Amino acid sequence: MKLLDIIDKKRRGGTHSADEINALIRMAGTGEAKDYQLAAWLMAVCTMGLNLDETAWLTQAMVESGRQLDFSHLKGVIVDKHSTGGVGDKTTVALVPLLAAVGEEAGVKVAKLSGRGLGFTGGTIDKLESIPGFETALSNERFADQLADIGMALSSQTADLAPADATLYALRDVTATVESIPLIAASVVSKKIAAGASVIVLDIKYGSGAFMKNREEARELAATCREVGKRLGRRISTVISGMDQPLGLAVGNSLEIQEIVDLLNGRGPKDLESLCIVLGAAAIQQAEDLAGIHNTDMSVEERLRDALNDGTALAKFQHWVVAQGGNPAFLTDAAQLPQAERIIDIKANQAGYIASLDALSIAQAAKLCGAGRVEKNAPIRLAVGVKLHKKIGDAVQIGDILAELHLDSPDVTPDEQGAIASLSAAFSFSDSPVTPPPLLDEIVV
Amino acid sequence: MKLLDIIDKKRRGGTHSADEINALIRMAGTGEAKDYQLAAWLMAVCTMGLNLDETAWLTQAMVESGRQLDFSHLKGVIVDKHSTGGVGDKTTVALVPLLAAVGEEAGVKVAKLSGRGLGFTGGTIDKLESIPGFETALSNERFADQLADIGMALSSQTADLAPADATLYALRDVTATVESIPLIAASVVSKKIAAGASVIVLDIKYGSGAFMKNREEARELAATCREVGKRLGRRISTVISGMDQPLGLAVGNSLEIQEIVDLLNGRGPKDLESLCIVLGAAAIQQAEDLAGIHNTDMSVEERLRDALNDGTALAKFQHWVVAQGGNPAFLTDAAQLPQAERIIDIKANQAGYIASLDALSIAQAAKLCGAGRVEKNAPIRLAVGVKLHKKIGDAVQIGDILAELHLDSPDVTPDEQGAIASLSAAFSFSDSPVTPPPLLDEIVV
Repeated sequence: MKLLDIIDKKRRGGTHSADEINALIRMAGTGEAKDYQLAAWLMAVCTMGLNLDETAWLTQAMVESGRQLDFSHLKGVIVDKHSTGGVGDKTTVALVPLLAAVGEEAGVKVAKLSGRGLGFTGGTIDKLESIPGFETALSNERFADQLADIGMALSSQTADLAPADATLYALRDVTATVESIPLIAASVVSKKIAAGASVIVLDIKYGSGAFMKNREEARELAATCREVGKRLGRRISTVISGMDQPLGLAVGNSLEIQEIVDLLNGRGPKDLESLCIVLGAAAIQQAEDLAGIHNTDMSVEERLRDALNDGTALAKFQHWVVAQGGNPAFLTDAAQLPQAERIIDIKANQAGYIASLDALSIAQAAKLCGAGRVEKNAPIRLAVGVKLHKKIGDAVQIGDILAELHLDSPDVTPDEQGAIASLSAAFSFSDSPVTPPPLLDEIVV
Repeated sequence: MKLLDIIDKKRRGGTHSADEINALIRMAGTGEAKDYQLAAWLMAVCTMGLNLDETAWLTQAMVESGRQLDFSHLKGVIVDKHSTGGVGDKTTVALVPLLAAVGEEAGVKVAKLSGRGLGFTGGTIDKLESIPGFETALSNERFADQLADIGMALSSQTADLAPADATLYALRDVTATVESIPLIAASVVSKKIAAGASVIVLDIKYGSGAFMKNREEARELAATCREVGKRLGRRISTVISGMDQPLGLAVGNSLEIQEIVDLLNGRGPKDLESLCIVLGAAAIQQAEDLAGIHNTDMSVEERLRDALNDGTALAKFQHWVVAQGGNPAFLTDAAQLPQAERIIDIKANQAGYIASLDALSIAQAAKLCGAGRVEKNAPIRLAVGVKLHKKIGDAVQIGDILAELHLDSPDVTPDEQGAIASLSAAFSFSDSPVTPPPLLDEIVV
């Protein structure tokens, strides 16, 4: 099978066979396919598309390009969750203990590999590193042992899972070929399958602060991922959620961990809580279905809500933190987490209702303060970020605090000046009452 | 202007501005645009297209990427001719003296930069190197002086003309992005403009032995080239000719030079002669039009035909050969050209009419004998090749010679065995009379 024939076929809008896709990914791995040839193929895919069979074959080929984690020796159901990313999205950290708490009967094992953030704010690994002592690089053995012991483990992603995805992604990033539903679906799903999951819940976000700018694309991506899951024998549930304003009130690594503690104490922001319940319910339903458990006394949602309110999830969080070497003192004393040196209040200079709260501007503000990194492996400022006091629909009076900017440098730098401007500009006002945009759009379990 | 934005625009089917195209070609030259990024853009162009404005801007940007020859100090009209390539196509060598002969009054200067062949048979430079002593690498000064003195010069193409075209072409060749009408047009026209031509005649071939497999694509390429010429102030005429069987009877470097001597003695194959007349007429008409000459006594075609029959063109060929250091003895004694060691006759094993004569199989036979090269700069066997005795429509009896295979090794090698097979297989027969396919399809002066 010749590489040029494969590229040429897609260029002409042809449909690949499984053999062609396998050959292409094999050649990408050996270097036989040069980066310019892969780039040409990726562009042909962007403009001519891949059907669901091709997308599933690509996903499978990427899974097989590297190591595949196998937890079949553990009893239970391996569950994973992925978000396409948004501003203030700390659901992963909250869901690990929540799923472990409610999924115990079904044998749920939350096996999560996460990345560091690159862009506006930190990733899950960065957020967890706000917790003193928390270790994020677990060996394979320790990861599996911890899964067996406490039903949950989270570690940083290693390069040996779906390496073909990493190769293609690096190229897509520099050739304007990122935005392709089938390529995104194959990338997301291949990593989850390689990491051993049989139940996968995807949170697909759309809006100004998300990668997907509109709802139609988000729905298409969700449907594609579900179909790929079906073809590859995995249960994939999808939730589509809006990201026109940040999720919850906290944006920034340590601030987000504090918000999770609030959530697990039953006093988290309502939007964050409802998204966690919806994502958690999808995972638990699938896992219980797989395990043959039919619990009709209480709905899954009720059990999840109880776990947030009765301390069960919080206790699981403590187990998890301790298992990964962290000091759990922050659970009762927030001052144990990195704290800002200074807090600047952003106040309303007009009265009315918050009409919009641009997630991208908030993310930009957090990034300018140092909450995110621009270069790979650059250090990150864990304590800085934004704490919102008002969200869309809230009524405000002149002088009300709209948001706090948390800074950790002794003097205000030019970047921080920019952050203050970006944060102020994120809010727009209306004289008449405003209905907040719906958080949840489509839930397919 | 950001490279990724330019690639992304074409990916979405957008239309580039001249600035965007210039920026892209500039970045290709500096290396700022990586080969994988250019490959992605090329594939986007293949699938989404370029309009005529974009194609003209691309052509101009490629011209400006390198040196531009300037013969404005010479009186007269610089004329160039290009063929998209075909089997047995020796028209360039014939047209140089023919145009110089008939175009003298209009001040025609035939300034031709040619390449070596890569693929089946030799290129124009290879063919001319069959002539003992003929020099094909002229300095800029000698080239211009010779143009001034005898109105014609031919030299091997140098890398400093339209280098961006070379960069893109090398990538296209390995990324399945060769077949794109606008990219082909920009490539062809940019090299001619950079070489200083104001009148350009393009011979666009289609059929089994040509790059373009069908007439519609050939017509589209012709129209695109003419429109690009208009936008860039050059007179581009196009001739579309069939290439389902070889042009003339000779295929192979030295054999083709011998056929040109026949042609310039007024006894060349009719198809070759008529194509040379048509191409020559287009060039002379444009040049006389530019020069303000309106010769109504005789048609251009008649004057060209006369030049072939009265020895004028042959005398010009002699001037040219001598000017470039060649020994003109071959003009009266074909034995002065490289001659084959052995000639194998391919005979008909059935009677009837030749129904088809596959140009590609003939080319393959010539290549297997060593008439072409597979690797850049590999040596070429000048004497070997194919001499046809029969073409489509000819009647044959069993035992008639269909073709001669000219070989220069003492024993028949396995490759030459393959050549014999390929040559025999090129002929197919019909019991009833066959009308030869038309050579000329569309002529736009």
